[in-house]
Amino acid sequence: MSNKYCLIMAGGSGTRFWPRSRKAKPKQFLTIFGNESLIQATISRFGNFIPDESIYIVSNKGQKEVLEQQTTRLPKENLIYEPVGKNTLPAIGLAALFIAKKDPDGLLVVSPADHLTQNDALFQETIESAAKIAQEKNGIVTIGITPNTPATGYGYIEIADEIQIGQTIKSYAVNRFVEKPNLEKAKEYISSGRFFWNAGIFVFKVSVFLEAVQKHAPKLYTDLLKIAETIGTESYEQVLDIIYNQVDSISIDYGIMEKADNVFLVQGDFVWNDLGSWEEVYKYDQQKDENQNVKSGEVVFINSKNSYVSAPNSLVAVVGLDDIIVVQEGDTILVCKRDQAEEIKHVVAELTKRNLNQYL
Amino acid sequence: MSNKYCLIMAGGSGTRFWPRSRKAKPKQFLTIFGNESLIQATISRFGNFIPDESIYIVSNKGQKEVLEQQTTRLPKENLIYEPVGKNTLPAIGLAALFIAKKDPDGLLVVSPADHLTQNDALFQETIESAAKIAQEKNGIVTIGITPNTPATGYGYIEIADEIQIGQTIKSYAVNRFVEKPNLEKAKEYISSGRFFWNAGIFVFKVSVFLEAVQKHAPKLYTDLLKIAETIGTESYEQVLDIIYNQVDSISIDYGIMEKADNVFLVQGDFVWNDLGSWEEVYKYDQQKDENQNVKSGEVVFINSKNSYVSAPNSLVAVVGLDDIIVVQEGDTILVCKRDQAEEIKHVVAELTKRNLNQYL
Repeated sequence: MSNKYCLIMAGGSGTRFWPRSRKAKPKQFLTIFGNESLIQATISRFGNFIPDESIYIVSNKGQKEVLEQQTTRLPKENLIYEPVGKNTLPAIGLAALFIAKKDPDGLLVVSPADHLTQNDALFQETIESAAKIAQEKNGIVTIGITPNTPATGYGYIEIADEIQIGQTIKSYAVNRFVEKPNLEKAKEYISSGRFFWNAGIFVFKVSVFLEAVQKHAPKLYTDLLKIAETIGTESYEQVLDIIYNQVDSISIDYGIMEKADNVFLVQGDFVWNDLGSWEEVYKYDQQKDENQNVKSGEVVFINSKNSYVSAPNSLVAVVGLDDIIVVQEGDTILVCKRDQAEEIKHVVAELTKRNLNQYL
Repeated sequence: MSNKYCLIMAGGSGTRFWPRSRKAKPKQFLTIFGNESLIQATISRFGNFIPDESIYIVSNKGQKEVLEQQTTRLPKENLIYEPVGKNTLPAIGLAALFIAKKDPDGLLVVSPADHLTQNDALFQETIESAAKIAQEKNGIVTIGITPNTPATGYGYIEIADEIQIGQTIKSYAVNRFVEKPNLEKAKEYISSGRFFWNAGIFVFKVSVFLEAVQKHAPKLYTDLLKIAETIGTESYEQVLDIIYNQVDSISIDYGIMEKADNVFLVQGDFVWNDLGSWEEVYKYDQQKDENQNVKSGEVVFINSKNSYVSAPNSLVAVVGLDDIIVVQEGDTILVCKRDQAEEIKHVVAELTKRNLNQYL
């Protein structure tokens, strides 16, 4: 079996966790549960079965400081920075160049930095199964999370026939990738039993991935080759800057997964959550009190239930309100109805409009 | 006409304005509207027609520092301190001793420190009318606010016959004082047209008041005489301490107004609000935006209406919530449904139980 490598995708920004997340400290760097930030928890999860020197991170330069602070266990040369965000396919492509240079036969596991899972043993077993398929079938393998609700916030993957190569976890050929559905569609998907959530976790041999890029995104491939030539030389930064700035922004889903015919899905039955909003954090939290309230910090609830309060530096009293989210961060306070957590982006837009950059 | 004096009752404590109000800074010292605290606004209101040297304040020693800070326009000797809170009758009695010593024939206007009114001219005219009745009829006169809603949070006063002594404002003999009614009773009171709100504003000659104390609260009268003897002497503090600690706690309403037969009511048609809760502050505030939101500080409302946010040192974003109150004070945040503002006392009780004195 080839050596395994992990690539953690940490370039994300976003406004869903405002005011805890800021431009300079997006979600993956936040400690939402336990003692580790989400990216640290992700490193720990893979660190159980992949050596630290084989764990890579792709991020952007704006996050260099916080990334280095939070990833001291990894070699600094494993932190790869995009000059500018170009979605997942160029980012994975860039990182793949470094790994290919070290070990062209290596098996690469790609994962978002900002999701949470439970059951590390089953997680590892699932990844190992995917690696086996990636190796033996020269496949591009994705982990499909077995859905438990008709969620409309995720992309879905429809499976085709089951495949068997002696792996421990159920695996399938893939019929198609579909975008986030409406509720009706999502319900259909769930009841069919043939759809899984797209968790953004992929496993492939680096060589197989690069071949797929060559085939399905030839322009990007040419650009990547030009960058590859400069790795380890003084001109790397400059060449990267020039070339990367003009590559197309495209996701691996759209650029490769939906086009390739050697795509497989390994069923993920571990608990998984993309923590897409404060609402998801509330739902995921296991430490609810008898009124289904979640609190961190000093909080008083009076006549309140089903609410989430996170206030590390304040006392918060909630009186007579159900289903709310309260988040204090520095001198900023969010008070939000749980089912309107998606609207937080409008707060950020309004702050931008008012030029209140200190709160962004 | 006798000289007029004003006595502002500033001894109140209370939890309704937590977290803005604290033990060391109760409601009367808060700046809720405009640039003046409630007690400063009260002094200004009377200062329009009563000279500063005739304005007295009765408070307690725990508030000495903030009281002196906020009342620099008054002579320090006009600030009178109860050693311990004993409700309104002993407090007025104590202050009356000082005024009687200076001007036994003086007319005294007693007012809470923590209410707001609008229309200063009408307010003054109403007080002048009350003073005329107090003088000519040796009456104990109260201002009855013409009610505009069947409020259940105030005591009511039922009038008897109208009286006419050439005063400008309608005035009546008083039939009875009644406690805070339930809603049904309050509606009856309103529709009868014979009930007014008890605003805690009283006008009388000092001599008439002290005679009423002698008649209806003879034990208190005896105690007051003992204190009076020591005013201006070295033993004042010590004697006050001993005697005041053992006088009965009793309100002027219960101790005098409900018993005396020389009680009159002058109709108050100026806008009056006792600002009894954050809910009252929201209602009273005239600066509502198009969604009926009130804000002070940097606030973003998204899908929210009919809400009140006061956050002098924070940015607050409210998303998808109607009818809420958010108050930030230092490192303390209250988030409260408007119709449950009365429950704030339970927060204070809980903080007391948890021994979190820094938030009280």
